[in-house]
Parts: sequence; C-alpha cells; structure tokens
Amino acid sequence: MILRRPSKAIQIGSVTVGGGALIVVQSMTNTDTRDAAATARQILELEECGCETIRVAVPDMDAAQALPAIKRAIRIPLIADIHFDYRLALASLQGGVDGLRLNPGNIRDPKRISAVVRAAKERGVPIRIGVNAGSLPPALIPPSPPSRDDHGVSTYGVGTSGEPLSTSERMVEVALSQIRLLESLDFDLIKVSLKAFDVPTAIEAYKSIAWKTPYPLHLGITEAGTPRAGSVRSAVGIGTLLYMGIGDTIRVSLTGDPCEEVVAAYEILKSLNLREKGPTMISCPSCGRAEVDIIGLAQAVEKRLEGMEKPIKVAVMGCVVNGPGEAREADVGIACGKGKGIIFRKGQIVGTVEERDFLSAILAEVERVQN
Amino acid sequence: MILRRPSKAIQIGSVTVGGGALIVVQSMTNTDTRDAAATARQILELEECGCETIRVAVPDMDAAQALPAIKRAIRIPLIADIHFDYRLALASLQGGVDGLRLNPGNIRDPKRISAVVRAAKERGVPIRIGVNAGSLPPALIPPSPPSRDDHGVSTYGVGTSGEPLSTSERMVEVALSQIRLLESLDFDLIKVSLKAFDVPTAIEAYKSIAWKTPYPLHLGITEAGTPRAGSVRSAVGIGTLLYMGIGDTIRVSLTGDPCEEVVAAYEILKSLNLREKGPTMISCPSCGRAEVDIIGLAQAVEKRLEGMEKPIKVAVMGCVVNGPGEAREADVGIACGKGKGIIFRKGQIVGTVEERDFLSAILAEVERVQN
Repeated sequence: MILRRPSKAIQIGSVTVGGGALIVVQSMTNTDTRDAAATARQILELEECGCETIRVAVPDMDAAQALPAIKRAIRIPLIADIHFDYRLALASLQGGVDGLRLNPGNIRDPKRISAVVRAAKERGVPIRIGVNAGSLPPALIPPSPPSRDDHGVSTYGVGTSGEPLSTSERMVEVALSQIRLLESLDFDLIKVSLKAFDVPTAIEAYKSIAWKTPYPLHLGITEAGTPRAGSVRSAVGIGTLLYMGIGDTIRVSLTGDPCEEVVAAYEILKSLNLREKGPTMISCPSCGRAEVDIIGLAQAVEKRLEGMEKPIKVAVMGCVVNGPGEAREADVGIACGKGKGIIFRKGQIVGTVEERDFLSAILAEVERVQN
Repeated sequence: MILRRPSKAIQIGSVTVGGGALIVVQSMTNTDTRDAAATARQILELEECGCETIRVAVPDMDAAQALPAIKRAIRIPLIADIHFDYRLALASLQGGVDGLRLNPGNIRDPKRISAVVRAAKERGVPIRIGVNAGSLPPALIPPSPPSRDDHGVSTYGVGTSGEPLSTSERMVEVALSQIRLLESLDFDLIKVSLKAFDVPTAIEAYKSIAWKTPYPLHLGITEAGTPRAGSVRSAVGIGTLLYMGIGDTIRVSLTGDPCEEVVAAYEILKSLNLREKGPTMISCPSCGRAEVDIIGLAQAVEKRLEGMEKPIKVAVMGCVVNGPGEAREADVGIACGKGKGIIFRKGQIVGTVEERDFLSAILAEVERVQN
C-alpha cells in the first residue's frame, strides 16, 4: 500500500540501505566505547534483538582505537559517530568501520571534511550527513544581497527573498550544502538525516529534502525521551514519514536500554507492514462486554511468544463483536465468550475450548502453524 | 503547523468535539458495567489521568440500568457502546447518557436504527457511527447492474464498475450509507469512526471519508495489543492522520489499564503540538559520549514530575553535542559534562552544578518556572 520514495542504494558493510531494500533498523550503544569488551557485549545483545547496523560514539582517540577490537567481536556493520574533530573520523576509517556519521553543525571546515571524504572514498565507506536541530551551525551574517555558498555548511539562514528560514528549512539548507561539498569531491556514498525533537519540524525537514536529493534517508526523532513517551513520539514522527514513503533506515532514540529502541523500531515497521518480525498480537482492550480475563490472557500469550523469530499474527479477543472477525484474519485466534473460546487457525474454526485451556490451546495452534 | 480539516462541531455533554475544538481524549472502562460502583471508580481514576469522555460497554439491560448511577457519580460525559440490540440504545438514552456509539455492522435494520435516532434527536444526544473492520456487515449480492441502496447499511461491496471494494473502501461505504440514513431522519449530531487493526487500512479509510463528510472523526486503531506494541501502533496510525489534519477525538485501544490509553493519547497529541499536558521530557539516549548516568537522571526527573498538570519542557542531555542547543530550547534544561552540568532556564544559563546536585537543581528550576 505504501509507495516508497526511490532512493540510491548504498552499502554499509553487508547491509544495503536505500534503493528499495527493506528498511534497516539501527541502534546506538551507550557503553563507554573505549571499553571494547563492554561495547561488543552490548552490540551482541542488540544483534539478538534484531539490530541491523550499530553506531558507536567516538568522542576521543582512545575510543577510535577500540574500534578494531569491537569490529572483530561483532557481526553487524559498525558505524562511527563523529563530532567536532575530523581526525577521529580518519582514525575510525583506519580502524575499519563500515560507516561514518558526521555532524555538519560541528565539523565545518571544508578542508577537513575533504580529508575525511577522500579517506572514506578510498575505502568505499558511506558517510551520513547527520543534521540535528539541536546543533545547527551558526548562520553567517548574509552579505547584501544574499548569495549562496556552494561549499561547506555555513550558509546564510535566509531564503531567496532574504526572509529568515524556519528551523526545518535551515536543517535542509545545511544538509544540501554538505551534500554539494561531498558531491564536488566526487563522493556519493551518502545518507542523510535531519533529526529534531519537535516532530512536525523533523517531518517538514524530511519531506522537503526527500524530493531534493536522491540519497537514502535515515529517520529519527532525537532526544525523544524515556521509553514510554519516547517510543510514542518516535512512532508518530517516523511512522508518518514512512507512511508517506520516506525513509530507508530508522533509529528510535530512547533514554533507556538500546534493545528497547530496536523493539520499538520493529513495532513501527510492522504496523505499516514494512517489515515482519516475530509475533504480532491483535488483542482487544477488554471492556464491560468481556467475560474472561483478556488482559491476563493476552499478556500470558505475549510472554510465551517472546523471542519467537518467525512472523505470526495471534488474535486474543474478548467477545463476539469483533472477536470472530479478527480471530479469522489472524494466523491463530481465539474469540472468547463466557467460560468458552472458539479457536481459529488460518481463518478456520478448529475447535471450542474451556477457559482453563485457553492459553495451552493457543500455544498448541501457534506450534502447529509454525511447523 | 498542522492545518486541521474543518468539521462540524457536536456537543457530547459539556465537551465539544469538532469544529476546531481541542482534540478530545476518550477511553473506555473495562469493568463490568453492571457493577456501577466499580465502573464509576474506574472513571474517576480516568478523569484524574486526563480522560475527557468515557465510553462504557452496554451488553445487556442490567448494564443499561446501571447507567444512571454511573452518570451521577462522574463528571465527564458518558457514552454508551451498543452492539446487536437497538433496545439497549433506547434504554441507555433513557438512562441519561451523553452519547451513543452504534455499530452499523451489527445493528442493520433501518427501522430499528430510526427508533434510536428519533430518541437521540429528542434528547440532543450525538451518535457515533462506529465502523470496525472486524465487524463489517455482510455485503449483499449485487443486483446486475449494481445499484445503490440509499438507506441502511447493507450495501453491495462493489465499486461503480462492479469491482470488489477493498476493506477500507467497504468501511467508508458502510459509514456513508449509515450517515445517509441518519440524515434522512433529519439527524446530524454525528461522529464517525473507521477502525481497523491494520494501520494502512485505517489510515486509508479515514483519509477517504475525511473529504466526503463534514462530521467530526473519532480516530482509533483497534485491538492494537498490549501497551508496549499497542501504543506504538496507535501512535503510527493516529499520529499520521493527525499530522494530515484529520481527527477530532482519539481513543488509544490497549489491552491493559485504561489509564495507559489516556497517557499514550496525550503523548501522541503532545508530539504534534496539538495538546499540552504536564511535563515533556527531552532526554538524549545516552551514548559512549555521556560521562554521567543520563538514564538514571532522566528517569528520576520524570518520576518526580509525574502527575504535574502544568505543561513544562525539561531537557536532560548528556553531552555538549546537542546538549546546550536542546537545553536552551526547553523551559528547564541541563547539559551534562564530566562531573558538572550547566543549568538553563528559559534559554538562559543560570548556573553550573556538581553531579550530586543535578536532580535537585533541575527540580528547583522547575519549581521556579512553574511559579
């Protein structure tokens, strides 16, 4: 149903981003990168959760020097997150990373950026131009009349009529300016992100750049908060863009265990039928109509199916209103009534069970469908 | 930034839905409605969480007879959820409810619907036409050539060229048919919902009907699952529509405590700047760059601000990359470095504090800003 924006494909190690490839799930470690063992351990856990590319902060040379050891210990592509100091990017490339993220807000000298781009080009390593509303470069004082700077990222923060740009327009301007710089160096292994905490600002920025550049887009809502609020915020922002066909890789930013980010990312993608992964629960909110403990049953089913890899849709429904309809659409379903439930498998009724057997009957059908 | 679809305003008791009013948050009880005391108790809890209209299932006459007692005990408007039996709608109206929800999938006889509509009209009580993908009415076998039935909801499930309708098209057809019936009875206190578990199906249905009818729309993704997955699913579906300007009232359906539904609903609305409510946390995900325990700090701040009514934005940021930028934008912010943090209030630096004082310094500033 969703027509995706065409984008250029790039290769982050073994993972293709863009060009119609499945939307890739990225996360970021929160260990001290200098502690290679702890960082690799967290990445291996993230691989288990389904993380497909991993980014690590490289705040200093010690962190850059830990990258080869981390890279050896993990399977998914490794991306170095660089701010302020271009030499950390060069060291990360030497350390064998599969991707770089540069922030045009704080690495601004075109000569230094060029040095990084040349080294990345030699190794075929893509660069993400990672613009963030919280760290935009200062706008230059525009000459009169304002003219355009075709290199670097210090553009003027004003529109063609001299009007001040909105935050989202300024983000797009900074990204396009950096894209032009990289292209002038004959480099096109580019990915772009335009993150903001404010969801409409981020959506506007991505919508605007989507049709101005062919490169794959990395979506994120930055500093979205702790898991409960942050996953909802991210779902609204990332989900709206994905529904519009925009986005090639996503990262949900949560103040919490990075595995939570991966879980939320897949829930967003699954909700739009863009990825399949493990069980999907269709369960009613329960109401004054339900005659069994739907919340308890749904939680028990969810718990028992946790970690299952194969996609499967399981419906746990509390009454006859939508119960039979939804249970019929799922791979396995139960429509509960007073003390009894009707079990469905792939749209067919396969039997009626007593309340005490609800859980075991559902699990038995899941087993059957999976084999 | 969001241009809302113009819609007719209706009045659910004291609450205006549509016509440019603030988007209203609805939830539904999961107590046994016949137990008026337990149901009223849950509604009072939901009022505390910010719920603005409440729906209760009315599965039988005993439930309908409990409505006056429930109504007396609560402050927010009460809506009766009716399926199958139109007499329950009549009894609910007599019981003093402020709104009705009828399911055109299972109350199909135009004569019975007319009886309900007349009684609702007498009392000025709005009716929600609540279509659900899981309980669509059976499509009639179309005559040849297919013709349109202007009354009732049993339409033909085929398009103008005889092609079968998609689920979302069928949902819209059923809703429009019911709208025509209500309008033919000179009734226009109408609200419409077109819920589905499948997010693209629901979005397509709402997008389609948005420009075919002037009535306010109640948004929901049905049977979305347990809170973690269900709130993300609802955020994608409801958030995408709200971003498009569609939606006048929302209900997040979760298999869990209904207060979770209300919390998630406000997070969706806050993320699009459509409502303000209590604290909004801008907190970074923490990474190898952070030199303090950002997760612990953000959780502690969030916990201490829980239940606060006044809107306030608080940024908890782990480093100098986006820290100062985001902290400056918030009402109160901290940008942490090694052992120290810079405190911002309304964009101004107000001081530097030691790590052990981070939490107390933030809370002191919040106090200051609130007064």
